Amino acid sequence: MNTDLQDYSHKRFNILTGEWVLVSPHRAKRPWQGQNEAVSNEVRPTYDESCYLCAGNTRINGEVNPKYDNVYVFTNDFAALQTDSKSFEVNDGLLKAQSEQGICKVICFSPDHSKSLADMTPVEIEQVVLEWQKQYEELGNNDLINYVQIFENKGAVMGCSNPHPHGQIWSQSTLPNEVEKKDTQQRQFYSENQNSLLGTYLTQELEKKERIIFENDDFVVLIPFWAVWPFETMIVPKKHQPCISDMKDAETLHFAEAISVITKAYDKLFNTSFPYSSGIHQAPTNGENNSHWHWHMSFYPPLLRSATVKKFMVGYEMFGSPQRDITAESAVKMLRNLL
Amino acid sequence: MNTDLQDYSHKRFNILTGEWVLVSPHRAKRPWQGQNEAVSNEVRPTYDESCYLCAGNTRINGEVNPKYDNVYVFTNDFAALQTDSKSFEVNDGLLKAQSEQGICKVICFSPDHSKSLADMTPVEIEQVVLEWQKQYEELGNNDLINYVQIFENKGAVMGCSNPHPHGQIWSQSTLPNEVEKKDTQQRQFYSENQNSLLGTYLTQELEKKERIIFENDDFVVLIPFWAVWPFETMIVPKKHQPCISDMKDAETLHFAEAISVITKAYDKLFNTSFPYSSGIHQAPTNGENNSHWHWHMSFYPPLLRSATVKKFMVGYEMFGSPQRDITAESAVKMLRNLL
Ligand SMILES: O=P(O)(O)O[C@H]1O[C@H](CO)[C@@H](O)[C@H](O)[C@H]1O
Ligand SMILES: O=P(O)(O)O[C@H]1O[C@H](CO)[C@@H](O)[C@H](O)[C@H]1O
Repeated sequence: MNTDLQDYSHKRFNILTGEWVLVSPHRAKRPWQGQNEAVSNEVRPTYDESCYLCAGNTRINGEVNPKYDNVYVFTNDFAALQTDSKSFEVNDGLLKAQSEQGICKVICFSPDHSKSLADMTPVEIEQVVLEWQKQYEELGNNDLINYVQIFENKGAVMGCSNPHPHGQIWSQSTLPNEVEKKDTQQRQFYSENQNSLLGTYLTQELEKKERIIFENDDFVVLIPFWAVWPFETMIVPKKHQPCISDMKDAETLHFAEAISVITKAYDKLFNTSFPYSSGIHQAPTNGENNSHWHWHMSFYPPLLRSATVKKFMVGYEMFGSPQRDITAESAVKMLRNLL
Repeated sequence: MNTDLQDYSHKRFNILTGEWVLVSPHRAKRPWQGQNEAVSNEVRPTYDESCYLCAGNTRINGEVNPKYDNVYVFTNDFAALQTDSKSFEVNDGLLKAQSEQGICKVICFSPDHSKSLADMTPVEIEQVVLEWQKQYEELGNNDLINYVQIFENKGAVMGCSNPHPHGQIWSQSTLPNEVEKKDTQQRQFYSENQNSLLGTYLTQELEKKERIIFENDDFVVLIPFWAVWPFETMIVPKKHQPCISDMKDAETLHFAEAISVITKAYDKLFNTSFPYSSGIHQAPTNGENNSHWHWHMSFYPPLLRSATVKKFMVGYEMFGSPQRDITAESAVKMLRNLL
């Protein structure tokens, strides 16, 4: 292990986006002046009659949710993207805009209002994974849709206003910024090396074992060398697969197991239902050759020191670059101890 | 005015970074389900004996602040960047890192603990501007420093733990991500047009008047066409100036007036001390020809609907691209009404 990385300020390169993160390890040694208090973990009922995601309840637009048994998907009642939105372009001097069409969906992970992914079994989570596959394919087959973004905002601190276990899928005509960056970096590496960028990285990490949290036959959970958030993690398939539809047989269950392992560890870390935004980056559905893509799921959790102390990505981070205090390597140790 | 931009989902191009923001105007029409409560505006004393930024008080490392009269600058006691940090490089397969040196400073805007920039007069704010100039020059003259990032985190929601009016300056050896992007875009435009990108944009906006909030002889306050945050604004010098040191004579006072006008309007908007992160982007101090740079100051405020309802940049925004509901043009109207 390179100890300089644990002792001195440096920046690390994100091979997937081509951007840098500033790491200031010594800063983690400063006395903590912010708040640091115990959190009351509210226990939720398994059914809440005022929840618009619970089975059998009526949503704000009058639609009634079916009495679903495991997973339930519907089109977002206040979608940021729509299929019947007008097509137009603005090219007026330095003002440049273009219309964007899309489909936004909500996916309930379980009818049980009290649960989160961390409380579900791998077999239950696998139902979510299978639905993600189905949605990726269906949406991807729509001519209008060239990219499908699957994500979850968990916890009030991550802008989630309903604690019922659910995620979202925003699919659209063009590739968003973050996907563009990863597309470029992966394409370049693949054309130069005839090998997947993330697969090559994974081989290197599996040898070093410094940043690995967990692995099973098909998946690895690790903290990437360039992680930005204090406890950011990534689930990577060992096989080179461009998209989640490529998972076959036991792979979906093994992916579910990886999700289960990391979300449970998160909940134990600060003894709280751990907030995060998670998302899956995978091949666009634009009909082009996307074999340079190696899909992966990332977790971006905001907490830093305790259930109530988060990392603020503010001034320097907004104007300069992301910055972290605790190193990826020390975060790995903390999470590994909780498996 | 192009009404499509007010009615349909679209993305707008940021000419300074080369990235896109997704705008979903119809989403602002949805009923608001989050909290929306009055805020008690705590009145602070002009001096707080427990504040480590007040004049005459002792800081955590034992140093005593002088009895300063207007502005006071010191080196951050827990600096993320240091000058005596070890130099090293990691180039190990796909692991790429390099050490980063720098100097981090804290700048107190006023000895008066109770104030913010919005409560200060342009003449008082000008003292801050003059100090920013001095710091930019001094730090920039240091061989170690190639970029000087001036910024302020205001408000607890922006990670600020001390309400005493203050900002920060992080200066470092290399160019951070956001600066790299703006360097590239400005350089390209300048070499193609022999004209500053932002200056050309400003001319266009001054003709249209759709996004202008305020102007005086030397500065314009506007919401850029590609703004991300609901009430994001930018102060741009009318003259093509690469850095803040180029301000002469009355310009520093006119800049201070622009800061005063926008921060006062912010405070009125939701009748609260308006939180934001602000920052100045300007020419690197790397000794190269940076005449393509046109310096500017941006405000990124998180509030969306009220003093207690902020915009969350979470799942889609982290994995896809920034997204906003209220358009730049409607935000301009709200702010203009408060001048
Ligand atoms: O430097 P401070 O005030 O301790 O810290 C604040 O600003 C820094 C620079 O934007 C951030 O890295 C921190 O997360 C934030 O809490
Ligand atoms: O779609 P929701 O749950 O209403 O909203 C949440 O997720 C969206 C997608 O990340 C964000 O744009 C919103 O700011 C956030 O509050």
